[in-house]
Amino acid sequence: MREIPSRREERVLARLGRVTVVGVGLIGGSIGMALRERGLASSVVGVGRDPRKLEQARARGAIDEGTTDLSRGVAEADAIVVCTPVDRIVADAKRVADAAPKTALITDAGSTKRRIVEGVERSPRVAGMFVGAHPMSGSDRSGVAHARADLFQNRVCVLTPSAQTPADRLRAAREFWSSLGCRILEMGPNEHDEVVAYTSHLPHALAASLASAVPADWLPLAAGAFRDCTRVAGADTDLWTAIFRENRGPLMTAVGKLQDRLATLKYALMNDDEESIRRWWEDARARRALFEAQQSTES
Amino acid sequence: MREIPSRREERVLARLGRVTVVGVGLIGGSIGMALRERGLASSVVGVGRDPRKLEQARARGAIDEGTTDLSRGVAEADAIVVCTPVDRIVADAKRVADAAPKTALITDAGSTKRRIVEGVERSPRVAGMFVGAHPMSGSDRSGVAHARADLFQNRVCVLTPSAQTPADRLRAAREFWSSLGCRILEMGPNEHDEVVAYTSHLPHALAASLASAVPADWLPLAAGAFRDCTRVAGADTDLWTAIFRENRGPLMTAVGKLQDRLATLKYALMNDDEESIRRWWEDARARRALFEAQQSTES
Repeated sequence: MREIPSRREERVLARLGRVTVVGVGLIGGSIGMALRERGLASSVVGVGRDPRKLEQARARGAIDEGTTDLSRGVAEADAIVVCTPVDRIVADAKRVADAAPKTALITDAGSTKRRIVEGVERSPRVAGMFVGAHPMSGSDRSGVAHARADLFQNRVCVLTPSAQTPADRLRAAREFWSSLGCRILEMGPNEHDEVVAYTSHLPHALAASLASAVPADWLPLAAGAFRDCTRVAGADTDLWTAIFRENRGPLMTAVGKLQDRLATLKYALMNDDEESIRRWWEDARARRALFEAQQSTES
Repeated sequence: MREIPSRREERVLARLGRVTVVGVGLIGGSIGMALRERGLASSVVGVGRDPRKLEQARARGAIDEGTTDLSRGVAEADAIVVCTPVDRIVADAKRVADAAPKTALITDAGSTKRRIVEGVERSPRVAGMFVGAHPMSGSDRSGVAHARADLFQNRVCVLTPSAQTPADRLRAAREFWSSLGCRILEMGPNEHDEVVAYTSHLPHALAASLASAVPADWLPLAAGAFRDCTRVAGADTDLWTAIFRENRGPLMTAVGKLQDRLATLKYALMNDDEESIRRWWEDARARRALFEAQQSTES
């Protein structure tokens, strides 16, 4: 992975032109709010299936106007961000490419990348407009009601260009995501999926495993450690079912690695092996300290 | 387990008499601060091995006076709280019982209970004075520098009386811990250890497993879910090595249960079984929602 120097300082007002957000939930709504609050787009159009949600997005200041007609919504767009669930992004990107100007940038906000990029590359028209993106700024909340203009501030956005990605769209995608406040990292789609299987999907799998492992009667004795570790288990079922399926190969590997760590602990416990338990904990503590040190440098 | 009605409203100033805290770290220091701030004790004495730490505790307002001489520190005490690491509590409680007035209450703050209660009950003098306690208010921080008077406010404190526990000491222990702001639950020491293996020790084991499973190079892509789930992996190594060893039987069972949950997910992923993945997530999400509903009722 390599980090692209940020251009946060540079205020390019309305430079992104007309931006269309397809799928105006937490992520799409937050993109719209960030664009509008910073004056980065000449207008923000929201495309969705439910007119009431589009109206809610407009009322919250996330979009200037909304439409349920995707073709109309993207017809004059300079940039389109597909913020639908991961299992719908390829189909939506194709519909966008068919209706949008050929010069437009299409990017997405999906939590997985390999299958999406592979799907996009089966269609030359989309492939010539698309740059895969994953802004790492999820939440256990969903819906435009929780959208915030600062959701992307200082967060990493991974771009996953491939051999087919045109250089001008890659530049446009870097500018788009960095103008929202993101720090840009670039890597291949496969590498992305392998990494997030460990850094994001595995923590979600663990949160859910822990939540369901504790008998309901015993919850009154659950405190801070349980609360923090299970927080993301409150996230949307459809969303996470789709993400797990999209990234099932790398996630299975990551789960396997976690099972190894647990097996090592269990063996040390079985033998009441103080030194092994101590070393097992100390390794984890050092890694966690490294993570914290990196976070404080970055923010 | 059964909940004992709280007497939080009742202000019994200085009613607890002279209180001695053995081990003035995060927990012992917070007990002292709560007692002094609420005017619940006529005086608070701190016993420790390091005179500088005792002086730091005095300067922070956690104790009125400190001593490295345990016998002197408890000689006139009405209540003694042993806040040393779990693997030292039995020996310390015995030393306390030998030097304290026979009418005094001895309680502790250890995160495990079965081995402690068994150890205490091998000595009739301690057994006649002791009530095992576990205030559920840990932190990934340690040391008196992080002590706070409100650490126990609205937290559960589990008392683990046994057949040998005198009724007057049980009443005194209830009054002691509830006057610090705790909600009191009572259960047997074995049941306590089985429950906290799931609600507290397992989340710690998972946090550490996850922290060490993610390669250091990939940490820049770790965000909220990783941060929350690994927070407690920053906790003290000695402390958690001792807790894991003390409760290794129940913890091995809890780890096994977690391994089952992960295996179920892995099998569903292997088969790309959408319905099973969805149900697996939904079960966890429902349990987490139940936990959150309970928390908001309680606080």
